[in-house]
Amino acid sequence: MKTPAIFQKYRRDVDEKIKFIIHDHNSELYKMMEYHLGWLDVNGNSVRDNSGKAMRPALCLFSCEALNGDINGAQWAAAALELTHNFSLILDDVQDDDRERRHRPTVWAIWGKPQAINAGTAMHILSSYALAQMKTCGVSFQKQLQAYQKLDEITLNLIEGQYLDISYEDKFDITVKDYIKMIELKTAALISGSMEIGAAFASEDETVTSNFKDMGKYLGLAFQIKDDILGIWGNQNETGKSSGSDIRRHKKSFPIVYALENAPERLKNELVTIYANKRMSEDNVNRILEILDEVNARESAQKFVETFCDNAKNNFGNLQLGQSAKSDMNDVIEFMAGRNY
Amino acid sequence: MKTPAIFQKYRRDVDEKIKFIIHDHNSELYKMMEYHLGWLDVNGNSVRDNSGKAMRPALCLFSCEALNGDINGAQWAAAALELTHNFSLILDDVQDDDRERRHRPTVWAIWGKPQAINAGTAMHILSSYALAQMKTCGVSFQKQLQAYQKLDEITLNLIEGQYLDISYEDKFDITVKDYIKMIELKTAALISGSMEIGAAFASEDETVTSNFKDMGKYLGLAFQIKDDILGIWGNQNETGKSSGSDIRRHKKSFPIVYALENAPERLKNELVTIYANKRMSEDNVNRILEILDEVNARESAQKFVETFCDNAKNNFGNLQLGQSAKSDMNDVIEFMAGRNY
Repeated sequence: MKTPAIFQKYRRDVDEKIKFIIHDHNSELYKMMEYHLGWLDVNGNSVRDNSGKAMRPALCLFSCEALNGDINGAQWAAAALELTHNFSLILDDVQDDDRERRHRPTVWAIWGKPQAINAGTAMHILSSYALAQMKTCGVSFQKQLQAYQKLDEITLNLIEGQYLDISYEDKFDITVKDYIKMIELKTAALISGSMEIGAAFASEDETVTSNFKDMGKYLGLAFQIKDDILGIWGNQNETGKSSGSDIRRHKKSFPIVYALENAPERLKNELVTIYANKRMSEDNVNRILEILDEVNARESAQKFVETFCDNAKNNFGNLQLGQSAKSDMNDVIEFMAGRNY
Repeated sequence: MKTPAIFQKYRRDVDEKIKFIIHDHNSELYKMMEYHLGWLDVNGNSVRDNSGKAMRPALCLFSCEALNGDINGAQWAAAALELTHNFSLILDDVQDDDRERRHRPTVWAIWGKPQAINAGTAMHILSSYALAQMKTCGVSFQKQLQAYQKLDEITLNLIEGQYLDISYEDKFDITVKDYIKMIELKTAALISGSMEIGAAFASEDETVTSNFKDMGKYLGLAFQIKDDILGIWGNQNETGKSSGSDIRRHKKSFPIVYALENAPERLKNELVTIYANKRMSEDNVNRILEILDEVNARESAQKFVETFCDNAKNNFGNLQLGQSAKSDMNDVIEFMAGRNY
């Protein structure tokens, strides 16, 4: 499965914008951000770029260009979206006690949780600093304000989703519906908002921008459930997570929630008993993998992914776009359904 | 020492604005905020208001009114400043591992650190939501954008100060100069910004707004060092902290930094040895109180407080203000120097 072209296309420009914002400040605090973004090693030396997919800024700029918008202002919004995503990852690792991300120690694992909270909070503010640069691109005051408010709305959704996710940790009566509500906030809101913001830089037509918004929502839902599949059955070399990884971390990801709702009473009880126990042995992990197999959790999850991708395709079909935009978007949708990393 | 009238004068209006913002959202996440603000008990029942001094919004609105500005827009900025202060307290308690604030368990002590991080981050976003309400008061787009950018700048300073504060925990070669640089960011930037933002709602004259900014800076510096004095020698019933409290928490507050810089070698070494040890016995606390006495740390700290108050007074003297504003401000300055809670 090849990475969609748009994930590469805008990457350098967005990275440059983010570097401009971060390098405008001078304190060790910002080194933590550069480390997290994969630009520096722990000693502050430059390393070969090791950062994530930069999917959100790519979808933002794609949406703007697909509607023939001027991407100069949108590039700053794209940088802000990537900073928002990354500040949430820094805090997420603190909250989940995760010591590793993208094959490297997390920020808190190196600098401690108190300083990682500072790095995350400061990066959150830098996403606003990126938006403030829109003024250099002739974006109207009103449009600038709209971008601030949209980003705040999305980010608040993200935090509400994170709140739900953590509150589910102690619960075993969560349904697939609850779960989807949670990831709609935690994951889909930012992806959806990325496409909506990008489109809004090109079009004032609300039917158009809300089509992009919905498309992003479905892509986001598909993305998260695919992520959940990979978090259990993914290949360690490709995903950076070992197989069964999310089970070992007691994560209540989609396949587990699906099993909790659909497994026969006996299997459900077994699953609850294992998950409720703080210690998880390798035998426990294997038994859970068996239970997930018995209820076809993997296939059902993949079916959800594909349904959401179909929904995204429908939204896309409603729009009058050029051939090249159509082909790029099809690649993205195929990637969401078929990726193995 | 009576509380200055302006701390009470604006309080109800600011609380109403904050309630309006928080009550517009519906999730358990927001209950944590209401608990922190002293409006709810841990079970979600209303309690007699138990919140802080609301000094920052008061200084913001005072500055606006002292210059005969219209406070309608400024009230939303004042609410945003109070939300900013409080989000930083929620995270600060997580970072410092503090289980108690204002005689009550901290948010994390009840809901756990992961959810407290969500409450803090969400409250940070709500401070922007408060700013967004300026649009209902006829504030121009440009002025609205300036308020967003000023608040971001102040908040980033605050986080940089928090970063320095935590980084000082392992250091013993900190000077009074380093310490003042840190509190200028961590504490004074928000108080200074509160006065600057309030003044900017009333005046376009930069000489005037920067006088308010500087006045706020000196008040903030005085406030923090007075806080440090009370954190060691304060009366528990009045401050909510037991005597010697900051020593027990290994805090490197002003008196300790002063002693580290000014104590003779032998006493300094003793102080470092006690502070470097993770366990702090009551004998250790008493010994440190003796060392602080020997180097006159308390009197020196109070002298710094008074010098900063004098500087604030000088800035104030540069301004042409009405009699009532002058009298209000003198009360504030006296309170900063003389308060015992």
